[in-house]
Amino acid sequence: LKQIRQVLDQLDLLEAIEDGFIAYSKGMAVVPPIGELLFDQPPGDVHIKYGYITGEEYYVIKVASGFYENPKHGISSSSGLMLMFSQKTGQLISILLDEGYLTNIRTAVAGAVAARYLAPRSVDCIGIIGAGIQGRQQLEYLGKVVDCRDVMVWGINERELTAYKQDMEALGFQVSTTQEVDKITDRCRLIVTATPSQNPLLRADQIKKGTHITAVGSDTPLKNELDPRILQKADIVVVDSIEQSKSRGEVHQARLSGVLNESNLVELGQVPGNKKWERSHEDQISVADLTGVVVQDIQIAKAVFKALQKMA
Amino acid sequence: LKQIRQVLDQLDLLEAIEDGFIAYSKGMAVVPPIGELLFDQPPGDVHIKYGYITGEEYYVIKVASGFYENPKHGISSSSGLMLMFSQKTGQLISILLDEGYLTNIRTAVAGAVAARYLAPRSVDCIGIIGAGIQGRQQLEYLGKVVDCRDVMVWGINERELTAYKQDMEALGFQVSTTQEVDKITDRCRLIVTATPSQNPLLRADQIKKGTHITAVGSDTPLKNELDPRILQKADIVVVDSIEQSKSRGEVHQARLSGVLNESNLVELGQVPGNKKWERSHEDQISVADLTGVVVQDIQIAKAVFKALQKMA
Repeated sequence: LKQIRQVLDQLDLLEAIEDGFIAYSKGMAVVPPIGELLFDQPPGDVHIKYGYITGEEYYVIKVASGFYENPKHGISSSSGLMLMFSQKTGQLISILLDEGYLTNIRTAVAGAVAARYLAPRSVDCIGIIGAGIQGRQQLEYLGKVVDCRDVMVWGINERELTAYKQDMEALGFQVSTTQEVDKITDRCRLIVTATPSQNPLLRADQIKKGTHITAVGSDTPLKNELDPRILQKADIVVVDSIEQSKSRGEVHQARLSGVLNESNLVELGQVPGNKKWERSHEDQISVADLTGVVVQDIQIAKAVFKALQKMA
Repeated sequence: LKQIRQVLDQLDLLEAIEDGFIAYSKGMAVVPPIGELLFDQPPGDVHIKYGYITGEEYYVIKVASGFYENPKHGISSSSGLMLMFSQKTGQLISILLDEGYLTNIRTAVAGAVAARYLAPRSVDCIGIIGAGIQGRQQLEYLGKVVDCRDVMVWGINERELTAYKQDMEALGFQVSTTQEVDKITDRCRLIVTATPSQNPLLRADQIKKGTHITAVGSDTPLKNELDPRILQKADIVVVDSIEQSKSRGEVHQARLSGVLNESNLVELGQVPGNKKWERSHEDQISVADLTGVVVQDIQIAKAVFKALQKMA
């Protein structure tokens, strides 16, 4: 893990992940349904994402879990690893013991890719809903695509918020904290939701014109951070995978509620190079609903593996 | 892999795997749909099986692949590994780098469990269709449940058959070889099919009264070793998983052909302790169709991990 963290700084992950989304949306990737294991006591979810880009050297299997009571015992909520195998022989090429770290990073990078094309030009304050690991990493990678360094973070308890403020100010952000979602929706035109909530945290009437929301927390059929009417109200709704959005995430929830206008649903991999899918007006409301696609894992695993090989 | 091979001899895998099937058939296991990746050039298939027995300590993810042109390049056709994680925290507990070996073994053990309950009492000759790795290991584990040491093996080419004969005679079997399936069906009342064939190798009219067939080769929706009418003709049809048999294996093929009598379909885990599901008459024809269930992987992984811990 230490080695993996070291090489990450050298890598242009935004390009790599964006290329992955483009390959996926062009139909160049084989992406079977996500494997999922759910646990009740204590609550946890495990996702197994696997697939390959046709004609490449490797196929990838990625395991990432969230056990949200772990922090009570001083353990990270995320665990997991990435496995690379040969497409030609099936032989194991590499095990990246990332403990879920690369999954967190590639999720954060996807948020930055979405913001690159969908955030309004001028953002005075970045709003982060959820003061956990992903709330930290989303902000870190947003810092690479937006100039704004003012941040407001929403969380459930004071202690968590104080820790978040401390950690992110060390990285050069100015952080204010709140336990009221209104404060975020009033002030922030770029909002990221990064919680495992199963009940909407944001209501449609709270969302101001000209706001972009990236929702990365919901990756299961039950998790739900946004009131479905937000997606109804939005001018642009982008997902990482239309296929996956049929069974998990915010778009899935909006579909269940019957409020989704499917005709304006676009994949993130279709956006780069297509001005018509980008934000075209500062008043538009846009939503990026990201459930995580194995092409992200393939791209980050390849990049890290290559860098580790060079080091060795 | 060397260490794994060493500890295997000490283990009573028949009990462990049988217990796994029983737990599965009692509904005590969480077994999601199998993850699958298929490759064309060169042909290969990867299966990801994952799940857990409720209330136990670990959950298991198992990767096993077959790339059937590997032997041309001097590489084993099987690859893979087994991963054990905590059901409480999601943390990685152990990686068993078995290169598909444990998958081959637990498949062979399942064949032995099936033979224990379904093979006719008196077997003069064991018939093995397929002279590859699985054809070897099936025979090795059958040796633990039947007294017969006479074997006839069918294969595609002489060289493969000669190697098989040599290897298995070293383990105390008397092996004759053939390239005609008839020779096997005429003489052997206990037959195992262990090929990746996509076209039936055995016809219904070839199967004599009092024959038990264990079909382990077909584990995908397309692979097919038995003429579906064999399953129609059989008095007893046992599967490892009724759920999985809906989409892969011989029972799946028989369903597609519309010749399956679903009412006599029984799970292997229901057989131990239930005389009515065992072979009750020497003239009966019985078929065990095994597509491989993650409970087998869970049981063998736990047993090997425990033994390795003791060694350390």
